[in-house]
Amino acid sequence: MPEIHSEQLPNGLHLLAEPIAGAQSLSMTLLLPGGSMYEPSDQFGVAPMLSEIICRGAGGLDARQHSEALERLGVHRSTNTETRHLRLSATMLGDKVDEALPLLVDMVRRPRFDEASLEPTRLLALQSLDALADEPQQRVMLELKRRFYPEPINRSPLGVREHLQAMTLDQIKSYWQRTFVPSGAILAFAGKLDWSALRDRVAKLTADWQGAIDEPIVQAEAKRDYEHMQADTSQVHIGMAYDAVPENGESSILQRAATSVLSGGMSGRLFTEVREKRGLCYAVMASYSGHRDRGAVLGYAGTTTPRAQETLDVMVQEHRRMSEGVDESEFQRAIVGLKSRLVMQGESTGARAGAIAFDQYNLGRPRTLEELAEQVDGVTLEKVNAFMREHKPGEMTVVTLGSQALRF
Amino acid sequence: MPEIHSEQLPNGLHLLAEPIAGAQSLSMTLLLPGGSMYEPSDQFGVAPMLSEIICRGAGGLDARQHSEALERLGVHRSTNTETRHLRLSATMLGDKVDEALPLLVDMVRRPRFDEASLEPTRLLALQSLDALADEPQQRVMLELKRRFYPEPINRSPLGVREHLQAMTLDQIKSYWQRTFVPSGAILAFAGKLDWSALRDRVAKLTADWQGAIDEPIVQAEAKRDYEHMQADTSQVHIGMAYDAVPENGESSILQRAATSVLSGGMSGRLFTEVREKRGLCYAVMASYSGHRDRGAVLGYAGTTTPRAQETLDVMVQEHRRMSEGVDESEFQRAIVGLKSRLVMQGESTGARAGAIAFDQYNLGRPRTLEELAEQVDGVTLEKVNAFMREHKPGEMTVVTLGSQALRF
Repeated sequence: MPEIHSEQLPNGLHLLAEPIAGAQSLSMTLLLPGGSMYEPSDQFGVAPMLSEIICRGAGGLDARQHSEALERLGVHRSTNTETRHLRLSATMLGDKVDEALPLLVDMVRRPRFDEASLEPTRLLALQSLDALADEPQQRVMLELKRRFYPEPINRSPLGVREHLQAMTLDQIKSYWQRTFVPSGAILAFAGKLDWSALRDRVAKLTADWQGAIDEPIVQAEAKRDYEHMQADTSQVHIGMAYDAVPENGESSILQRAATSVLSGGMSGRLFTEVREKRGLCYAVMASYSGHRDRGAVLGYAGTTTPRAQETLDVMVQEHRRMSEGVDESEFQRAIVGLKSRLVMQGESTGARAGAIAFDQYNLGRPRTLEELAEQVDGVTLEKVNAFMREHKPGEMTVVTLGSQALRF
Repeated sequence: MPEIHSEQLPNGLHLLAEPIAGAQSLSMTLLLPGGSMYEPSDQFGVAPMLSEIICRGAGGLDARQHSEALERLGVHRSTNTETRHLRLSATMLGDKVDEALPLLVDMVRRPRFDEASLEPTRLLALQSLDALADEPQQRVMLELKRRFYPEPINRSPLGVREHLQAMTLDQIKSYWQRTFVPSGAILAFAGKLDWSALRDRVAKLTADWQGAIDEPIVQAEAKRDYEHMQADTSQVHIGMAYDAVPENGESSILQRAATSVLSGGMSGRLFTEVREKRGLCYAVMASYSGHRDRGAVLGYAGTTTPRAQETLDVMVQEHRRMSEGVDESEFQRAIVGLKSRLVMQGESTGARAGAIAFDQYNLGRPRTLEELAEQVDGVTLEKVNAFMREHKPGEMTVVTLGSQALRF
């Protein structure tokens, strides 16, 4: 029977481990409480700069030695700035974990912060910002986030140009000292592992790690409403968002089932109505994004100027029409889709390490695949329809990018 | 011991199946000889239109009924136009394959070709073309392909506007009749499967399928050289390509090991020289692309106007410097990386189904993971360095997109 080991170490670090039978690989997800929501308001971009600079040498090793040491073990690692967390992910063969762990822990505990790393780190951060010019879909979705969510969870993970330009090594170091703390951090493993050996190894490597940080207070007011971003292009990118339930047990599964009816595959309503019947756009999708304190349904479509207004109208209409309920056949397909995806998730060590880490953050405990499957089995057509009746989409926030504003 | 079942059916269809212990999912890759290289020269885009229209109803079922039937089984399917093949991929739970196969085979054997599907299919194909305006990286790499390879393997998988606008249903049907033939097609499965039951099921469903097609002759001359695409943007996208060995046993593994030294991770030469030391660009990569008759090394970098010339210069220099050889430590990391990736591939049913199908096409037989691991084990530093000395990068083809041309 699959089981997830879970232990909170004395310093507050939550350690989780899910052994996966037959796997040779081992994936690790470390969520640190250093996402963009923690950034000082004159240092937007300190999080992505920190996430880059911890890849440039740690412990006794300089940038090159440290990367080489990881690659000699076949470890693939990456860092990523999210809203709530700064995430360090790694994948390796399970039997390399003993050697890999000290190198990975050093990235968190003992980054080098070499003077020489500062300018290349800054240049890369600025270039990621510049590259947005060629990523209109990402631009629309970042602007949607900025309007839809309140401060400080509405921030771009890329930072702000003037702040990046002025960032000092001391500011990055002090952000690291403040946010890379064990209390509030979650370290999850999935794949080939020996729990008691792994637990002892982690406990030993992190025994002298101390500290805690409060999650920033979320302001009440968001801008919301409609915004058009002018761009001289024949393409139109549309982003939309509205409130949904937070991530928790049953109601988030009901929201997921409903979103799956809307956007779950080639017979999903959006795909059928917008893309297949009308050929209106080359991309259309909706997703549910659930966090412990709030949730949202996000929508995106990419289309051309002459089809943009109709695309937006049909999108809004299909999202609103969900409150009228779904039929038995749509419901069955959504449930089968959710269950198939659980099986696929179970065959990926990386997906499972991420899933149990976010469960720990959102729900306070990880769920096994078995528990998730039981939750899906407990969903009925009646429950989904009652849920959608009671949770009608409220006010929608819309952002468009293109050569002319739309009516909304 | 892992084993790959392989059988050529009387009609010429190559059937492959790799059972994966512990997997519950089953992935399928069907390679049909209908990639863009087969398109008539006045019908560029007939392949992507066919690949879209076969998702719009098949057998006795209309578009919606057919999509719904697949989704009731939890089958995720997709189609894709490549240069040499039109690919149909599907993923499902292994115990659904008996019910799913007739629906998937119908897409190939009995598409509906409803009149009503033509215009939405055309609109989507045109919009995919329009969307290129917002995808400068893809634009550069498509233009690089067009210059680097000879006709007809240099074509865009998206077709040509005027041809898409004029395409008739009869042209699509006749392309289907000509190219969707069993002789030359490869059907590969990986995951949870029972070989003898699967074999019988496929044989029965395809018994009356007949036909063969010759692969088009590749013209000798490609344009190559340097091309600049003018665009009013602060970003510069750089694509480069040069000849490498075809996909086969040993020399392609040596080429892969060398490319891995160049671009295999955070300690790869390109990453270190271009991105880490100089902070020159936000993205830089190189990859080896091997086919049965030829191979290429492809490079890409995304950067800003002031850094573009230096980025291109360093890229070219690092590719050329490979012929001077790699050191023991770089070599060891590359080998560890190749072996780790094999293990990861073995944990993904989709990756294995694709890999054995392309092995069958390129080498005439699929390789087990064990055989691939043995090939990697047989690689030595001496062999890699001798190979790189004998296979110096030749003439390079370069395409840039940005506000000014570079010196090359």
